[in-house]
Amino acid sequence: MNFYKAVSPLDYRYYGGDKELFEKLQAFVSEEAFIKYELKVEVALVKVMSRYPSPKKPICSAEVAMEVEQASHYVTCEEVYLEEKKTHHNIRALVNCLKRRVSVKAKPFIHLFATSSDIMDTATALRLKDLSKEVILPDLIKLEELLIKIARQGADVIQIGRTHGQHAEPITFGFAMAEYVNRLGNRIKRIKETSENLRGKLSGAVGAYNALSLLIDDNFSPQVFEKMVLKDLGLKPSLHSTQIVEPEYLGDLVYSVISCFSVLANLSDDIRHLERTEIGEIVEKKGWERIGSSTMPHKVNPWNFEHIKSMWKTFMPRIITVFMDQISEHQRDLTNSASSRFLIEIFTAFIHSVERLNTALGKIEIDRERMRKNLNFSKEFIVAEPLYILLSINGHPDGYGCVRKLLAKSRKENGSLRELIWEDEEAKLFLAKISERQRKVLNNPEEYTGISRERTKNICEFWESYIENIKSHKIVSEK
Amino acid sequence: MNFYKAVSPLDYRYYGGDKELFEKLQAFVSEEAFIKYELKVEVALVKVMSRYPSPKKPICSAEVAMEVEQASHYVTCEEVYLEEKKTHHNIRALVNCLKRRVSVKAKPFIHLFATSSDIMDTATALRLKDLSKEVILPDLIKLEELLIKIARQGADVIQIGRTHGQHAEPITFGFAMAEYVNRLGNRIKRIKETSENLRGKLSGAVGAYNALSLLIDDNFSPQVFEKMVLKDLGLKPSLHSTQIVEPEYLGDLVYSVISCFSVLANLSDDIRHLERTEIGEIVEKKGWERIGSSTMPHKVNPWNFEHIKSMWKTFMPRIITVFMDQISEHQRDLTNSASSRFLIEIFTAFIHSVERLNTALGKIEIDRERMRKNLNFSKEFIVAEPLYILLSINGHPDGYGCVRKLLAKSRKENGSLRELIWEDEEAKLFLAKISERQRKVLNNPEEYTGISRERTKNICEFWESYIENIKSHKIVSEK
Amino acid sequence: MNFYKAVSPLDYRYYGGDKELFEKLQAFVSEEAFIKYELKVEVALVKVMSRYPSPKKPICSAEVAMEVEQASHYVTCEEVYLEEKKTHHNIRALVNCLKRRVSVKAKPFIHLFATSSDIMDTATALRLKDLSKEVILPDLIKLEELLIKIARQGADVIQIGRTHGQHAEPITFGFAMAEYVNRLGNRIKRIKETSENLRGKLSGAVGAYNALSLLIDDNFSPQVFEKMVLKDLGLKPSLHSTQIVEPEYLGDLVYSVISCFSVLANLSDDIRHLERTEIGEIVEKKGWERIGSSTMPHKVNPWNFEHIKSMWKTFMPRIITVFMDQISEHQRDLTNSASSRFLIEIFTAFIHSVERLNTALGKIEIDRERMRKNLNFSKEFIVAEPLYILLSINGHPDGYGCVRKLLAKSRKENGSLRELIWEDEEAKLFLAKISERQRKVLNNPEEYTGISRERTKNICEFWESYIENIKSHKIVSEK
Amino acid sequence: MNFYKAVSPLDYRYYGGDKELFEKLQAFVSEEAFIKYELKVEVALVKVMSRYPSPKKPICSAEVAMEVEQASHYVTCEEVYLEEKKTHHNIRALVNCLKRRVSVKAKPFIHLFATSSDIMDTATALRLKDLSKEVILPDLIKLEELLIKIARQGADVIQIGRTHGQHAEPITFGFAMAEYVNRLGNRIKRIKETSENLRGKLSGAVGAYNALSLLIDDNFSPQVFEKMVLKDLGLKPSLHSTQIVEPEYLGDLVYSVISCFSVLANLSDDIRHLERTEIGEIVEKKGWERIGSSTMPHKVNPWNFEHIKSMWKTFMPRIITVFMDQISEHQRDLTNSASSRFLIEIFTAFIHSVERLNTALGKIEIDRERMRKNLNFSKEFIVAEPLYILLSINGHPDGYGCVRKLLAKSRKENGSLRELIWEDEEAKLFLAKISERQRKVLNNPEEYTGISRERTKNICEFWESYIENIKSHKIVSEK
Repeated sequence: MNFYKAVSPLDYRYYGGDKELFEKLQAFVSEEAFIKYELKVEVALVKVMSRYPSPKKPICSAEVAMEVEQASHYVTCEEVYLEEKKTHHNIRALVNCLKRRVSVKAKPFIHLFATSSDIMDTATALRLKDLSKEVILPDLIKLEELLIKIARQGADVIQIGRTHGQHAEPITFGFAMAEYVNRLGNRIKRIKETSENLRGKLSGAVGAYNALSLLIDDNFSPQVFEKMVLKDLGLKPSLHSTQIVEPEYLGDLVYSVISCFSVLANLSDDIRHLERTEIGEIVEKKGWERIGSSTMPHKVNPWNFEHIKSMWKTFMPRIITVFMDQISEHQRDLTNSASSRFLIEIFTAFIHSVERLNTALGKIEIDRERMRKNLNFSKEFIVAEPLYILLSINGHPDGYGCVRKLLAKSRKENGSLRELIWEDEEAKLFLAKISERQRKVLNNPEEYTGISRERTKNICEFWESYIENIKSHKIVSEK
Repeated sequence: MNFYKAVSPLDYRYYGGDKELFEKLQAFVSEEAFIKYELKVEVALVKVMSRYPSPKKPICSAEVAMEVEQASHYVTCEEVYLEEKKTHHNIRALVNCLKRRVSVKAKPFIHLFATSSDIMDTATALRLKDLSKEVILPDLIKLEELLIKIARQGADVIQIGRTHGQHAEPITFGFAMAEYVNRLGNRIKRIKETSENLRGKLSGAVGAYNALSLLIDDNFSPQVFEKMVLKDLGLKPSLHSTQIVEPEYLGDLVYSVISCFSVLANLSDDIRHLERTEIGEIVEKKGWERIGSSTMPHKVNPWNFEHIKSMWKTFMPRIITVFMDQISEHQRDLTNSASSRFLIEIFTAFIHSVERLNTALGKIEIDRERMRKNLNFSKEFIVAEPLYILLSINGHPDGYGCVRKLLAKSRKENGSLRELIWEDEEAKLFLAKISERQRKVLNNPEEYTGISRERTKNICEFWESYIENIKSHKIVSEK
Repeated sequence: MNFYKAVSPLDYRYYGGDKELFEKLQAFVSEEAFIKYELKVEVALVKVMSRYPSPKKPICSAEVAMEVEQASHYVTCEEVYLEEKKTHHNIRALVNCLKRRVSVKAKPFIHLFATSSDIMDTATALRLKDLSKEVILPDLIKLEELLIKIARQGADVIQIGRTHGQHAEPITFGFAMAEYVNRLGNRIKRIKETSENLRGKLSGAVGAYNALSLLIDDNFSPQVFEKMVLKDLGLKPSLHSTQIVEPEYLGDLVYSVISCFSVLANLSDDIRHLERTEIGEIVEKKGWERIGSSTMPHKVNPWNFEHIKSMWKTFMPRIITVFMDQISEHQRDLTNSASSRFLIEIFTAFIHSVERLNTALGKIEIDRERMRKNLNFSKEFIVAEPLYILLSINGHPDGYGCVRKLLAKSRKENGSLRELIWEDEEAKLFLAKISERQRKVLNNPEEYTGISRERTKNICEFWESYIENIKSHKIVSEK
Repeated sequence: MNFYKAVSPLDYRYYGGDKELFEKLQAFVSEEAFIKYELKVEVALVKVMSRYPSPKKPICSAEVAMEVEQASHYVTCEEVYLEEKKTHHNIRALVNCLKRRVSVKAKPFIHLFATSSDIMDTATALRLKDLSKEVILPDLIKLEELLIKIARQGADVIQIGRTHGQHAEPITFGFAMAEYVNRLGNRIKRIKETSENLRGKLSGAVGAYNALSLLIDDNFSPQVFEKMVLKDLGLKPSLHSTQIVEPEYLGDLVYSVISCFSVLANLSDDIRHLERTEIGEIVEKKGWERIGSSTMPHKVNPWNFEHIKSMWKTFMPRIITVFMDQISEHQRDLTNSASSRFLIEIFTAFIHSVERLNTALGKIEIDRERMRKNLNFSKEFIVAEPLYILLSINGHPDGYGCVRKLLAKSRKENGSLRELIWEDEEAKLFLAKISERQRKVLNNPEEYTGISRERTKNICEFWESYIENIKSHKIVSEK
């Protein structure tokens, strides 16, 4: 398979151009896959007909159902598309392809009671549920586990904390990574919930089960019939549907995914800024071995992290389409049809980015020497906060102002703030009673890292236990 | 108060220009209100200091806490803004205003341990939680109750279902409205969950509780301290924070609100299309009494419903800002500062639209005559589906094709499809065994409404019970 | 070529799945095409080296340039992608593929002085300029010509004008279409301007012509060198570039295209609303022959027009990415790299939609009978405006109020407003002096179409002349 | 005026809270101002009636026109809003306020022939044209002049160029700023063009001049009438309008402004990254005097630059609304009504940001010492490109590979690449013939700045001349 004549970068490059990812995803994200999912729904429909309202008096015979199921294995995407050239209707094309493979006896029951959206919307829910369970969640959990590992390893590595790009107060590198452990963990939870909440439907052309209602009698319930078909597929119906499933279920999942994508983009931004030549706290292992520029042989670029950000910029705005597609006139207009087809791209790009990030994170190295050097650069300044706090605790009515005064002096005299503290009569007075531990912080402000370590540990433990829980419940497939 | 010199339509027109809404919302959405919320957080902070780590050996005395609380009642928005002109820092300004009102003994403890974002992010969570509980959810529930009423009233009113703007198969008007009962219900649930999940923080400048950690000993835990302050305010902390609260909690709420806004926009679109001159199934009570155009005295326009859509178009795209604000460099950059201030506008506009929709829906009337007339227009065509289904159930291998053939004939001969059925030998053969009920549908296709009635009833009952449940648990304030 | 394993609907369906469009576009939009464009830039670069600073003392020999040009014909996309698996750098891969095909003498001059973006950004400008000239503009002009034809044909066909979906005052159908003739015309102009304003670059790694400057002497000017290369390709440089071309040139084109897309979406919306069962002023020729629904044999749906809207909803939000990509740190960061690759999709989807709209518009038919019937429905009301105007011109101080009073009366008595006019003493008084022509309008309000006809004609003539002008200047290729 | 009860940050803080900006903008952006602009249009309309079709036989007398003009000076925003509470129609309210102030003779001519949108759309075009001319363009030119000054001052200050956040090749700081001189210049041009291209209308309820056509005779032309009214206001009509002006004219201006906003955001990002503690090439003059944090007394933050970015994030996504508002059903639906009101916020926020950026840029200082130090850090690496180029020019078949080999060696041996060059036999061979100038670059790679200086100068001159041109043509008001 080569996609060099394709127009989509996903097809010729990021998915179709990446053999491994392609193999992993094609059974879910390709058009071929979607046709297979549609066939699954058609089969499930006939199979329930063969045992409802009662196994003894079903709508069609078990043989009919078996025939249809058999036929479904032979229908190809190519064939359906060829047939569509004639019918100008994709689901009628699919139905024709099935019908031509079964006996006269079976023909009437194919697609019976269903409108196209019953098949397509249910197939969409199904493939996204599968994709989430089989790929997205396992991939995210793998990334989460890597982040936990990095956070644990860096739990004690002191790093200057930065706000506004300026040195603030010290933390540890593990604590900085724990941010992403926690934010990613929360997004995993939400993706899990929203993907498991996707819905199918079998309520017909306008959602009122009009066709199925022709069969109503004491033993036949259209809603029970729908539930049975969906249950066989592992799905639930919505309490209401029109021609289509209510768009909010899918919208909630897309939001969760894009919101998670933003977390990855933030992490990527952080890493690439830490790789800046002047900061250099993170370097890419063996980065020198790769070509960074076609004209500057010396360049090593954080291109993987820049790539994640770039993909986020590409796919994040697509949420707008999702919101616009929430609006469908009356029992449905078709203006969500083409646009819905593009949703699978968001998931594909997201998975690609998750895996790319995983690989890239596996290759970074912390440069502890640079971390120390960078922090030392501001050693004199970062003592400002603990000093102000200690002055205040001990009753200084304007500790903040006092420290600013000392800072001004130190700048003017090019002196050390840490030394000026003990030369200032006012400060000395209020610091007389501070504990040994507190005094140590004033002298070694690099130790002013709060509870970075414990916090990191707590967060890692919390999410390790969450992951274990998911795995043991086999909610996410383990490969 | 007049806002005619304002630039924001919310201020001069939709909120500030609407006395009733203004009175209702100003305690939550105005800048004045926000300052009050910030003061609440400052007070909660000092109050916990006065009883922790132990009532006997607290950080500050109960008198100090009381002094600060007293002082907080006198600080005005105007004063803080004046002070900010000097400090060029909003929270330092607030702190100064508090400080100047307390004794030397109390001064050191104001804002102690806190970074500006501790105050601001916590205040934001608090006001949005309150706003959701006191206004948004009650307003939405009121709207939901009205929709339920309309759906119940229309449960039996037959209406032609429309897909692609074309007549499809019949439903009832109540069933069409039940769509919105269910979709709105689901959004209410999500807004409730996400608003109750907002978080505050008190973890300091870089999120590692650096300042609070200066106090650590056996009895003092920075995390317990944070939990106590937040609990007093009715909030929870996040497992991790940097200088700011993780943006996802707020993002989830904004998404829920915008997603709900789309549902309102869809409903509004449906109504205004049903008001089209040629459709006329819905009319506005006493519409004639209002001026519809400054030059065409005869116009009656669905402007309220158009207005909802217009507000949705204005505020929906703002989710993009929310996603961009998920990205903050390292322990925080300030590029989310101004943008965060604008979020309250989304909520304000949403509430305005919910109330407007409520009023507008209260004024519509169903024109049953037009509904009947419109359906009759397609009476001959809509029999096509039940006919195809009945042919198929009874074994016709191509019921669909057979009906298309009959349709072509009826168009050619300008004949009635319902009559042609019984003239066609093939069709007659397969219809021989249909039940009386089924035959009746073929003759009276307007009765082919599926389970519109039951479904409507079920949905209304479900959400009535949900609402009752919320109310009885007093989760939503009852006014 | 089949794309059934692709993930992008463009690839498997709208472009790759449409043989004709695929043949037409692949030379511009495919990745294969892009590689060819990059090669063109590399060749142009060496060719200028072979004659500058002077044909006698060039940087490289004419043979070298010829060798490279020859080699460029044999490099395939597949080969470059294979090589990239080794180099992990796309342009280095391309360069290697070229190099391995030339003599040792020629090798040093391939890609010399260039940074990757010199090649990629110039190739991008080139292919979009070509695509605009060869496909987009001709396609749009074809659509414009069809719209002009439709407008001219309907110039006299009276239609009720609609505002807010309500009957307003009469126009002609041609006038309604002239709106789109004019709006589309204006967008064509802008697309033409912005596509012709695209820029290339050859200013090296940081935009300062560092590498080329190594050659500076009296006869050599880096800027002249750049101009020569770009001129050979039919492009101009920008006054400033960093590693990349300033993003605004491309942004302006994308905006123009999306803004034009909105015009198409509006037209599509109008048509599909006019096709609503209850309105029926437009029908699709032989619509009955196509399948509209997989379960309702009678359905004829405006799916082509819905499709245009759907594509617009999919691609319009992508402008957000364009704005975000305007931001690139310092002399460039790579976060625009992946995202830029997706831009070609917007153009592809746009072209697809233009062609689809063209086909769909070619199949619509006006139902004059329904137009007349619809207008008649409001005949009594639409006289309200001319009546009010005539009362006012003739001095009635409150003509508007007077008409509203008469309208109320007519509604109450179920009477004809046109008759009531002449029964009302007050009205009669002010209407005494109106001209015969004016009186005729009051009696036949369907003739109150203003200057719909002339205006339509003017607009059609204006744009016909613009098109002729473009064509005669051969600015757009004529096929 | 205080806006503390407002909900919009523009009102309580950035515009309404900034006395100077408020004074400057209120005559354009406030609702009060908009009412004044509407009145201007109403007056222009009557005034043309008093001299057309001929001064001798006008539609109304000169006294009537004068009466209306006089009356217009007394109508207040407050009064109109009060009246609207009764009419529920904003323009009818305005008309009533005018009418009650004139004689019975004048009453009929107020608003005659006009539909509300004639007044509102024309007023909108007018106020935005004025705002652009009086504020936006002068402000942008002031910013451009400051940027030119900064670029000229830094034209010779060597700075390391950065791509991907990594040191690339040297430029000068002036050259880096020249990027923004040029990009901003181009945007100014586009804002000028699009603001001068805004259109008004007076074509009535459905755009066909229905009302005006009642007057048609040999001497009266509705289109001439419209042109006269608009010309008096300094505007032009569009070739077609419906009830509203074609949305593209305004859309083009909004795009230009947002696209310019992105340029400001990019500049702001660059500055704040150059202010990072570890980079420190730019510092804020007397930054120490301001409070940077409420808990860290030492912080100096680039908050002004962060603020610009934040405002961009807030307002950029609003383009989506503009695109959605391009779609209006038939001769107009009202779903663009509320949304249009919010557009003025974009302009207000943009102006605020331009002025803020201007102030902030006026306060930055270049730290040449840090620039030198940063560049020195990579001195050994940046020689890689010129070395590769010189090897190639002189015939090395793989200069790039040769340099990578030397780089690997230098890293391994911790040696100086510049020294290794002359130790490598292969390199030495190819470098034998290089000029003295070229050799100097290899030894002093900090001089490898290409034509940074000249380019900077050229760009500054080009835009200086453009600005002078605008000013001398008095197209932009000079204050």
